[in-house]
Amino acid sequence: MSHLVRTDTLGGALTIPRAVLATERSARAAWSALAEPEDPRVRDLIAEFGPIEGLLAGLSGRDSKHRIFIERAARTDLGEATAFAMRHGIHLLIPGDPEWPEGVDDLTVPPVCLWVKGDPDLSSLARRSVAIVGARMSTPYGNQVAASMAAGVVERGYAVVSGAAFGIDKSAHLGALSCGGRTVAVLAGGVDRAYPTAHAGLIAEIAETGSVMAECAPGWAPTRPRFLLRNRLIATMTAGTIVVEAGLRSGSLNTARSAARHCRPVGAVPGSVMSQVSAGCHGIVRDGLATLVCDAKDVLDLVGVMGVDAAPHQSDPVQPEDRLDPVDAIILAAVPRRGAASVDTVAFTAGQTVAEVMGALARLELGGFVSRHDGGWKRRRSSRREAPS
Amino acid sequence: MSHLVRTDTLGGALTIPRAVLATERSARAAWSALAEPEDPRVRDLIAEFGPIEGLLAGLSGRDSKHRIFIERAARTDLGEATAFAMRHGIHLLIPGDPEWPEGVDDLTVPPVCLWVKGDPDLSSLARRSVAIVGARMSTPYGNQVAASMAAGVVERGYAVVSGAAFGIDKSAHLGALSCGGRTVAVLAGGVDRAYPTAHAGLIAEIAETGSVMAECAPGWAPTRPRFLLRNRLIATMTAGTIVVEAGLRSGSLNTARSAARHCRPVGAVPGSVMSQVSAGCHGIVRDGLATLVCDAKDVLDLVGVMGVDAAPHQSDPVQPEDRLDPVDAIILAAVPRRGAASVDTVAFTAGQTVAEVMGALARLELGGFVSRHDGGWKRRRSSRREAPS
Repeated sequence: MSHLVRTDTLGGALTIPRAVLATERSARAAWSALAEPEDPRVRDLIAEFGPIEGLLAGLSGRDSKHRIFIERAARTDLGEATAFAMRHGIHLLIPGDPEWPEGVDDLTVPPVCLWVKGDPDLSSLARRSVAIVGARMSTPYGNQVAASMAAGVVERGYAVVSGAAFGIDKSAHLGALSCGGRTVAVLAGGVDRAYPTAHAGLIAEIAETGSVMAECAPGWAPTRPRFLLRNRLIATMTAGTIVVEAGLRSGSLNTARSAARHCRPVGAVPGSVMSQVSAGCHGIVRDGLATLVCDAKDVLDLVGVMGVDAAPHQSDPVQPEDRLDPVDAIILAAVPRRGAASVDTVAFTAGQTVAEVMGALARLELGGFVSRHDGGWKRRRSSRREAPS
Repeated sequence: MSHLVRTDTLGGALTIPRAVLATERSARAAWSALAEPEDPRVRDLIAEFGPIEGLLAGLSGRDSKHRIFIERAARTDLGEATAFAMRHGIHLLIPGDPEWPEGVDDLTVPPVCLWVKGDPDLSSLARRSVAIVGARMSTPYGNQVAASMAAGVVERGYAVVSGAAFGIDKSAHLGALSCGGRTVAVLAGGVDRAYPTAHAGLIAEIAETGSVMAECAPGWAPTRPRFLLRNRLIATMTAGTIVVEAGLRSGSLNTARSAARHCRPVGAVPGSVMSQVSAGCHGIVRDGLATLVCDAKDVLDLVGVMGVDAAPHQSDPVQPEDRLDPVDAIILAAVPRRGAASVDTVAFTAGQTVAEVMGALARLELGGFVSRHDGGWKRRRSSRREAPS
């Protein structure tokens, strides 16, 4: 049932489950559970020996620079990531899979595999997708721009990729969801580690209609370096990156630079010159790294396929939700499908004022989109697939 | 006391005061009272005959295309503009005067003269000056940015030139005045016609510490075409033009285009993507006409003299070119030593945006590296072997 590897450096031996060495897929899953993203030693071992023999070589102790893998393997059940994924309906993609998002192969050290909750077809999602990212400490202005830009992008048939963080990321995901659009959350830890935890519901909803993906194995914690490494996936899997708000030291500028380095167009949204979180956007425009974008049309002009995306994408028959006012649509997206949420909770989730939410909920109730439930509000199931009137 | 001119077209005769024909100055003043700004017929007559004989030729009726001058002369006291100016302490500048702002000579049809209230030395005012212009229907945000940008610009020893209009213009003048800085109001009508009348006090204050100037003769009303013609003076007499807020059809975009056409750097201030009066600013940045500027430092980086206004002066035994900003150095390398290249050609060769190239050429000209030649740019021979200071 298992495979014994002599490890000279530890003076002992490691036990590797035989299933791990059975296929390239299981070996890559083990690599993902063993090494940090973007480890060039992993890339080199796989390039020289292939994923399976590379694993044996890396754990043989023949080369002292691979010692970290042995130490980690000694504390890790290398078959557990795959087993956990199977138990929890998590998909595993490896390079060459038809669902693999080709863009990430442009990286100097591409991921060894990707873990996906929800729709596993990252290839078709990513082919027509835009990254919309920005500051966690965003302003109401930034949130509104991110949401309406995301809504406009998905209306034109593009998916919105972001990082599920507070602020701009959240607004981008919500804007996409509000129009029934597809959105992808790229997590810094494992796909089972919803982070921030306050966004567990949002991340679960994204997985229902789009995808939640990660390079790290299930169970891995989102650490600071992993956030930066995660950003390079967002930057390269998409057709372009838009920064809505960013301070001068924002991590989203790191995403933008990564996109530019890999020849993806970068857009930045202007804002007040007095806003700290627009300073980063203005800076990358001034430096020539980014193009100014003010709305979804500008975004598509920047990233779209000439002559295909220039004209608005038609998606008849339109859903009832498509006809909603953009802010109502954002508020609708913040109303849960299961259980019920108070007006305050909906307002917090949607990033809108309580007064706006109360007005919107009244309109949405009349439209048949939401109903009162247990003193709160819930989404009406039928509102999603209702035939156009 | 007077000079009789036969005018065949009117079948009669005009009386021209002899004083009008006494000097180039008085003849140019008469031209200013006779013809609209930017009349190419006036330019051609002066080029062919000089201002005095040109006046006689234009009023002779020999050429039917000059008939408008005869009709106007029949209703105008051609000596009155000069007499009025003398009575009211209005200065008259003509090309070649040491106080003449050289920049306007780059115009296809430069002014025949300029009327000035306040400090007549427009040359020294304009040499280090920035135009700060924008929407009349500005927002509090735009007003605040215009005022603080103007204040920052005058604190760095630059004058602020604007059009004394409501909104951004007024805020720019006030920002300059608030720091005891110098500011120039360029009026569309005569300098005695404070317009808008609500700004009579502001315009009087500008004349006390700076200058109020006009191309039209005293008494002339500010009409719509004269506003557009006035804008070309603002654009060319200054080292660069900054648009703070502008709708998509704003007259200040006309100023910006005029500045760009004459190779002056153009800056635009970003703002909310939801603001109508930031749409024009965002548009000219996206089109590559303008560079994003957020504060006075950005403005000086754009228009300032390299090594004087931007970076501290280095006295190492390096070549002057070695001290250039890397992008400026790339742009300098794209300017030919023989013949002249247009801004577009330089931009193409250097792989930079037109806006960047215009900013760089302005800096390089001030640094003595390039010069204007036949409507284009060429490298100055001396710039290569100049001894370091």
